[in-house]
Parts: sequence; C-alpha cells; structure tokens
Amino acid sequence: MTTLPASETATLLVSCPDRKGLVAALAQLLYGHGVNILDADQHTDTVAGLFFQRIRMDLRELHTDRHAFEHAVAEVAARFSMSQRIAYGDRPTRVAILVSKYDHCLHDLLLRHRAGELPCEIPLVISNHPDLAAQTAAYGLPFETLPSKDKDAQEARIIELLERERIDLVVLARYMQIISPELCGRFPERMINIHHSFLPAFVGGKPYHQAYERGVKIIGATAHYVTQELDQGPIIEQDVARVSHRDAVADMIRKGRDLERMVLSRAVRAHLENRVLVCGNKTVVFD
Amino acid sequence: MTTLPASETATLLVSCPDRKGLVAALAQLLYGHGVNILDADQHTDTVAGLFFQRIRMDLRELHTDRHAFEHAVAEVAARFSMSQRIAYGDRPTRVAILVSKYDHCLHDLLLRHRAGELPCEIPLVISNHPDLAAQTAAYGLPFETLPSKDKDAQEARIIELLERERIDLVVLARYMQIISPELCGRFPERMINIHHSFLPAFVGGKPYHQAYERGVKIIGATAHYVTQELDQGPIIEQDVARVSHRDAVADMIRKGRDLERMVLSRAVRAHLENRVLVCGNKTVVFD
Amino acid sequence: MTTLPASETATLLVSCPDRKGLVAALAQLLYGHGVNILDADQHTDTVAGLFFQRIRMDLRELHTDRHAFEHAVAEVAARFSMSQRIAYGDRPTRVAILVSKYDHCLHDLLLRHRAGELPCEIPLVISNHPDLAAQTAAYGLPFETLPSKDKDAQEARIIELLERERIDLVVLARYMQIISPELCGRFPERMINIHHSFLPAFVGGKPYHQAYERGVKIIGATAHYVTQELDQGPIIEQDVARVSHRDAVADMIRKGRDLERMVLSRAVRAHLENRVLVCGNKTVVFD
Amino acid sequence: MTTLPASETATLLVSCPDRKGLVAALAQLLYGHGVNILDADQHTDTVAGLFFQRIRMDLRELHTDRHAFEHAVAEVAARFSMSQRIAYGDRPTRVAILVSKYDHCLHDLLLRHRAGELPCEIPLVISNHPDLAAQTAAYGLPFETLPSKDKDAQEARIIELLERERIDLVVLARYMQIISPELCGRFPERMINIHHSFLPAFVGGKPYHQAYERGVKIIGATAHYVTQELDQGPIIEQDVARVSHRDAVADMIRKGRDLERMVLSRAVRAHLENRVLVCGNKTVVFD
Repeated sequence: MTTLPASETATLLVSCPDRKGLVAALAQLLYGHGVNILDADQHTDTVAGLFFQRIRMDLRELHTDRHAFEHAVAEVAARFSMSQRIAYGDRPTRVAILVSKYDHCLHDLLLRHRAGELPCEIPLVISNHPDLAAQTAAYGLPFETLPSKDKDAQEARIIELLERERIDLVVLARYMQIISPELCGRFPERMINIHHSFLPAFVGGKPYHQAYERGVKIIGATAHYVTQELDQGPIIEQDVARVSHRDAVADMIRKGRDLERMVLSRAVRAHLENRVLVCGNKTVVFD
Repeated sequence: MTTLPASETATLLVSCPDRKGLVAALAQLLYGHGVNILDADQHTDTVAGLFFQRIRMDLRELHTDRHAFEHAVAEVAARFSMSQRIAYGDRPTRVAILVSKYDHCLHDLLLRHRAGELPCEIPLVISNHPDLAAQTAAYGLPFETLPSKDKDAQEARIIELLERERIDLVVLARYMQIISPELCGRFPERMINIHHSFLPAFVGGKPYHQAYERGVKIIGATAHYVTQELDQGPIIEQDVARVSHRDAVADMIRKGRDLERMVLSRAVRAHLENRVLVCGNKTVVFD
Repeated sequence: MTTLPASETATLLVSCPDRKGLVAALAQLLYGHGVNILDADQHTDTVAGLFFQRIRMDLRELHTDRHAFEHAVAEVAARFSMSQRIAYGDRPTRVAILVSKYDHCLHDLLLRHRAGELPCEIPLVISNHPDLAAQTAAYGLPFETLPSKDKDAQEARIIELLERERIDLVVLARYMQIISPELCGRFPERMINIHHSFLPAFVGGKPYHQAYERGVKIIGATAHYVTQELDQGPIIEQDVARVSHRDAVADMIRKGRDLERMVLSRAVRAHLENRVLVCGNKTVVFD
Repeated sequence: MTTLPASETATLLVSCPDRKGLVAALAQLLYGHGVNILDADQHTDTVAGLFFQRIRMDLRELHTDRHAFEHAVAEVAARFSMSQRIAYGDRPTRVAILVSKYDHCLHDLLLRHRAGELPCEIPLVISNHPDLAAQTAAYGLPFETLPSKDKDAQEARIIELLERERIDLVVLARYMQIISPELCGRFPERMINIHHSFLPAFVGGKPYHQAYERGVKIIGATAHYVTQELDQGPIIEQDVARVSHRDAVADMIRKGRDLERMVLSRAVRAHLENRVLVCGNKTVVFD
C-alpha cells in the first residue's frame, strides 16, 4: 500500500498479557529511534487477557543500527513479558513447497510468486512423486523427488533438504503423506497445510466424498498450521463454495480445487506478510 | 415469475427410478389434458439411478376436472413406479411456528409472510414461554403458550393444536426443546429446524461457543428436516459468514442471528414453493 | 468485545496530514492522563498523505476530568493539524428515521435496536405517509406524519422535528423524497441513505428495472452519506446478491429488500460505533 | 455428472415464442427416435413471451442416423418457429485465445483445459506482443504473434488465423486492443471478453482506478459476448470481491486478477457446455 521499497521496512510482531501503557511504551521506543510507523494493528483478547500488535516500520531514518534497535526492543519486551519478533523486508522468507500429484495449488503458488504477490524466495519444491518435475522446471525452480517408499528415509531426506536450503516456511500444497511429529516439531507455526473441507467438518480422508454423502449445500477448504494432531492445528484461513444436488463428487472436487488454491495462497501470503500471530490453538490474522 | 394467479396453477413433484420415456410420458399426459407447462425442472441422480421432476402447471384450460386429472397422473405414476404429489395453488400450506425466547427467526418469518414472500397461512404460533406473546399478537396471529414443564403434557398439547389447525408444515424457529420421536414421526419431511452451525460441524449445544473455541474463520447456519437423530436430517439450506479474531462469542451470536433467519426463511420458502424433494438423507432443491 | 460497560468508554477519531511522531504523541498523551487504550486502528492513505486513527479508550482511571482531557487532546491536535472528535459511551447518539411506504428497512433497524445491536436512541420516526404509523407504534416509538404535499412545508416540519429532538444522525430508510440542499447541509456526514443498486451502476430511479434491462448477474445495494449530488456521496457499505435469468423484476425487488436492510443497518451500526471517517468523497471504515 | 462418455451425448438448444405443447412435442420427438433425455432445463421469459430449453441427450440408442434426426428436429422447429442448435459431444469446440501482456487469464484457461475442466480444443493462442510465447509453449500450444502495429494488418492476420484453424469460439483473455466491427461480426455470440469491473459500472479504460476514485467497497469483473458497442454485450457471468480503504489501486488490481480469471473461465465453461442462450442483450445461463 505504500510505495516505500520493502527493503527499507520491517515488521514488529508482539504478543503479551494486556497491560496499561503497552502501546505508549512501544510507540515512544520507535519514535525515539527514528522509526516511523507505517501501519499498526492491534488486538486485545479480553477473554484471555492478551494483547497482540503488528507494527510495520519505516527504517530509513533509524538513528542507530539494527543491533542496537533490536536490543532496545528486547528490553521493552522483557519489561512487559512480551514475545516479539522483527522481520526485515530485505531478508525474504525462504519457502519450500511439498507436493504429490495434484498440481493446482503448486501452480497457484508459483504463478502468484512470479506475479510478485508472495514476498518470498522458493528455493525448493519436494515431491514423493516425479509427476510434477517438468511443470516445476518450467518456472525455473529446483524439484527434488523423494527417494523411496520408506517413510523414515523420506523424512530424513526432507529434513536434510529443508536444512540445506535454510527453509523458514514449509507449505504442504496437497502433499498426501502424514508428517511425522518430529518433522512438524521442527517447524512450529511455520508449516502450513491445506485441508479440503471447512474444518472441523470432515476431518481425515476423502472429505468431498463425506460431504457428498452428508448432502451439504456448502463445501469448503481450510489452511492451518500443522501440529501433531491431524487437521487440528490453528486455522489461518477458510473459504466456501455453494454446491447443489446437481454436483456429483467430481464436481465438488473441481469446485474444491479453486477453493483449495485460493485459501492456501491467502494463508501463505498472510504468513509471509507477517500478519499471523498464533495464540493457543487459534490465530490472529491482521488485514 | 409468471403473472398468472397462483390459484390457477399447481405443482407436480415426481421421483422414481430413472427410465427412458419418463419425460415424454409426463409431457404427453399433461398436453393431452390441456395442462400447459409453466416451468419444469428435472434432475437425474446417476449414482442412485433416480429421477426427480418438478412441473409447474397452468390449469386454466384443463379439459377434465381435478379428480380425473389426478387419476390419470396416478396411472402414469404406477407405470413408472413413481412417487408423486400435486400441490394446488388455491390450497395454501398451513404452517405452525414453534418458538421459545429468541425472536429473530419469528419476526423474519412473519414479516416475510406479511410482505407476500411466503405462500402459506400461519394459523398458529406455539411457545414454551410466554415472552413472545405480545410481539406475535402485533401481527394479528394467535399465540399458544404450552401449559407446563411436563414434557409429555407439552407434546400432547402441541399435537392437539397441530391437529386442530390441520397443520401441514411445522417450523422450529429456534425452539429450544427436544422433539420426541413420536411428534417428528407425524411430520416426516414436513418439520423444518434451524441449527446455528454449518452442519455437520458443531452438532449439539452451544455451537457458537464451540466455533469460538476452535478458532474457525467462518460460521454458518443450517436448515434441515427434522428426523429422529439430532441434527442429522436432510439439509435444505446452509449459509455462512466470515468471522475473525475480533469476534467474541457475542459477536458470533449477533452475526449468526442474521444467518439463522435468512437460512430458515429460504428453506421454508423453498418447501412452500414445492421445490424440495427428499432422497434418502439428502435433498434436491430446485431453484 | 470487551465486557467494560460502554458508559466507561469513549472513542477518539482523528485525521490529519501524515507526520512522524503522531502515534507516539497520542499514545503518550493518553497514557499520561490515565486513559487505557482498548482498541486502536489506524490507516495511512499514502496517495493523499493522510493519517486516520480510531482509539477506543477506557476512562475509568482518567486522572483529570473530561474537560481537561479534551483540552489536552485539542492541544496535540493543533500541533499536528488534526481534525479530532471524542464520542463518549454515556452520551448515546440520537437517531431519526425517515420512511415512506416500504417497511423492511424500518423493521430491520427497530428490531436490531431492540436486540441491542445499535447503540443509540431513536426518539423520532418521520414519514410522508401515514401507512407505517401502527407498525412503528408497536415498538413504542413516536411517529410523525408530514402535513402536506407542499415540499417546503414538509422540509420545514422535518427540520423543526430534528431540532426539537436534538437529532445527531438522520437515516433515510427508503425515504422516497428528494432532500433539499439546505436540509442535507445541516447534517454533513450525519445523514445516511440506502440506494438500491451497487453504485455507481444504476444511479437514479428504478434501479432494479435498470438492472433487469441490462441483464446483470449480480444486484446490489449501497449505503452512503447524503450530499447535494444525488447518489454521489461517500459510500459506507455495499453488498450484492446473485440473480439469474429466472429472476423477474419482482424477484430482484424481493432479493434486494434483504440487501437494502442488511447494508443500511451495517452502515448505521458502523457510524454509531464511530468507525467511519470521511475523506473527500470516500470513507475509511474500521472493522 | 453422468458417467456416460461425452462422445455418446449431444445437447439441443432451442428458443422460440412460448406456445402450448412445445415441451410435449420435443419430448415425444426424442422418445420416438430412441434418444434418452439425460438432463433438461427450460425457462419461460413471461415478459418477452419466449421459451428456452436445453436438453442433454444420450444418443446410444438413436434409431436413425444423425442426419435423419437433425431433419426431424428441424421439422418440429419449423412448426414452432424455433431457433435450434445441436452440439455433438464428439465434435469439440475449437477455441482461440487472444492475449496481450497480462498472463493470469491465459494460465487459468490453459491449466483448466489441462485439468479437463474445459471441453474444447485450443489450437491457437494469438497475441499482439511476444511476451507470453514461452509460457504458452510450456503447455505445448502454438503461439502466433501479430506482425505489426498496423491495426488493419493485425486484424487481417487474426481473421486468417481464425479461419485457418476453423475456430468456433474466440476468447479475449485481457486482449488490450479494440476489436473491429467486422471481426466481431464474424463471431456473433461466439466471442467472449472479460472486463475488469462489474458492468455497467466503470465502462471503458482503467476501471480499477475509477473504482478507487469513487471509493466503492466492492469491485467486480464481467464476462460478456462482444458486440459492436464497447462493454455493452450480453453478460454471461459476473463476480465481485470486497475492498476497503486499505486497498490501494495496486491491491484492487491484484484482487481483480483472481476475479477476472475465475469469471472468464466460468463463462467460457458455460459456453462450451452449451449452457448459454442469448436473448436480445441478455443471456439465459442454465446451471
């Protein structure tokens, strides 16, 4: 929304128990360091007594260096028992996409990336099938096929690749394998999955078939952070589409493809723009 | 959509195993009796092998009388193993509304009825609380308060009232009591309930609280025919609204009120316009 | 969203040319007066170089009195060339509703008011027709019928009534008369109209007929502040509904009624919650 | 929805003045030729006095050959002053896509085509710029760049290519050139354009800029058949998305890309499935 180059900006995310003077303390700190506030969103969860804030900052007139600035933020954070995180616009998030055979979410992410909609680097596409190798190559991106059907060997290879490429965010773009607790434990709040139902309806396999059997008039898709419980992680984004008696399972699958890719891309974009904060099993997603 | 008075029209609903010649046989039958087809919708469920049709008819030039016409329809129906039903525009459906303390669905139904959106008579509003008596009276409608907290006595009174008024359709407009198997068995596919979630998510009590706890980004409402299994009957209509971290339970309840009344009224309207056919635990709802 | 009684809160709205230090200055000012920030939204229009902020405040520990606090805010405002306005939760907005013969928007507003969704008083309903007198009386509200068909006399009477009741906000709930420049000049950004199209399509009369003629697949409704140019004022809220070849003008009018009342009520609610700021011919509407 | 191979089916589209016996005559004709009706939709425009029908037919037990069948249909058509058209499932529509520099609609069409969502052949992509040549080639499709900036030479070349490839449907997928009356006269009701606004709002150039200036809360996209009047042809499909004060023109353009490609693809799909009938400047689009 601003014409400022992203490289001159940073985003500060904080969450903490709600207390008086929080907003003033942060605003004063930034002002004192020559940091201009471009946008600020805040949310107070009055039930949980928690405060969340996202501040997009213009760093062009920062009086000190980043190190000193981070130190000052950490001091205020300690005073208010804050969790905080600073994301710099000139250090783009590194994303790995995991896929199987379905290509619609992959294409959607890669086309949006090429169109400049997703502020990230994508140094890695991993699959347990070779099918999408050529399609990925058409975008000039590396594609790694997992070696075998041995789950442990596959996971070991995934972890090796993610580490080698210093991946910040893992996107499961219709990746049809269970993720082990160990792997998902390495990417807490940094691994996003798309589930093809409006959770919590139709957990587990074949949700469009389940939806068809139940005779629902609306189908949905859900993007969520992956946790160790299947389809139970914090929901980032959901959307739905109307269906009718005219829609067979194949029609639901077709309509669902559009939902899945839109919902996944919106969730990934929100994460990359540092607009998502996790609170227990729920998310705060700033606009 | 037509300017023909409803009293000159009738609607024929049929369902049967799919067979060649069905459409031609019905079309020929109607043509032969001087009945003009105003609108016809059909649906073939190729999985179940079933055929459904709704035909809106202009009876002004019917060559015979209704009795003879019905007889002829029944003969064709027998030939094709059809279930069939004729609804005449000059015999409006008689509707009873059951409510408790929440008034939003009641007002919505009564305002739409007054505006001519619901082709029916409403000779009866029943409640297990006296709270909405005056509001119902403002529409000039009779209001019956159930006598006691004795469930059996209440049910007996409900059945007595529904029979006395020759009720065709029972609408549970946020009626906060369990309906007994006996009562719901008397109104198969003729008793509509509104549930305040997008079923099958959040079955049972306090769905907005469940939705809040799960952190969903979309809430919904579902209108369905009542069967003996709680919240499991054939779904007629659903709709949803976006929520965010900003929405506390009270906000969900507020947004949900709009969903509930819109969804219930649309379902009731579809039923009254003879646009709903039930097939197993699913519905065909023609536009 | 908070459980704090509205009477203990106030909302500060500011707009001004964007400058560094704005947010810090306001946050510091509030903190210094013992005012806790419950919610804060801000927006920077980088094209126009303007800054907008809405701060919802907890006044329970205000160190000084309101007069001194207002004085302090005015001083900061002067320093930054701010427009500012403080709305106290214990001084509810006084609303007049103007209607003609259509009742759907009136009922929607009055039912929501009764349900506690609209934080205001409604001491006055005015109409150029007597038709809705009894319906308004059922809510226990005064109804004033305008005396004649003489436009000048009508306007004079309207102004007299609005002044007598110290009205803050005028809502035109399908009021079918042109408002004179003089009358609308008395309620700048305080008179809301509902237009039954998605403006700027179908300005002027009979928009559903225009939509039918053009063969659109979507119809809409628009709530806007009234200015001297017909249907050209700042848009507060819009919504749409799908239509098809099946929908005659009468169907569009029916579907449109739902749009009109939802859109108007949302706009009125946004205004009453002090979430709307006007900037030129556009609005900032905080969530 | 049926598992029948498309090659065994055909679709009959008819439109004519509404008359008694129409439906029976067609049903009888098909039955008499051994043609089973898979799906039938009809619509009567009571204002215009016109009747429209779409019949999807199973030809596996056709008693005669196609020629004799077509002859019989033509006879009935003549009797009722019908326009009629038969589309056979084994003669796929041949589509040409015209593009300029924007690639989102092109990719959307080509990905859906590859996924089997669009029942057609795409033997030709034409552009007035070379930019999208490589991206088109990645789908294995021929790409023709127009030779010069001479409008007449360009048009002549387009016509030559469309004729050479026996194109049935031309899709303007954000093609940024005016189409001459002659070219559009060659493809009546067979040339589809996507306009990036909810017509009739924001006709002409830079509709997102116009929308931004007007301060609308909803933006849209419109797919329509091209006629000689700019942006005035029969609308096939429209959709919208919410925007707010947070959305700069660039955000509207980004959100609009999703609208444009979804709306265009849905319109093309409807056309290819023979679900669109044109009536004056409006369309009947069967579900």
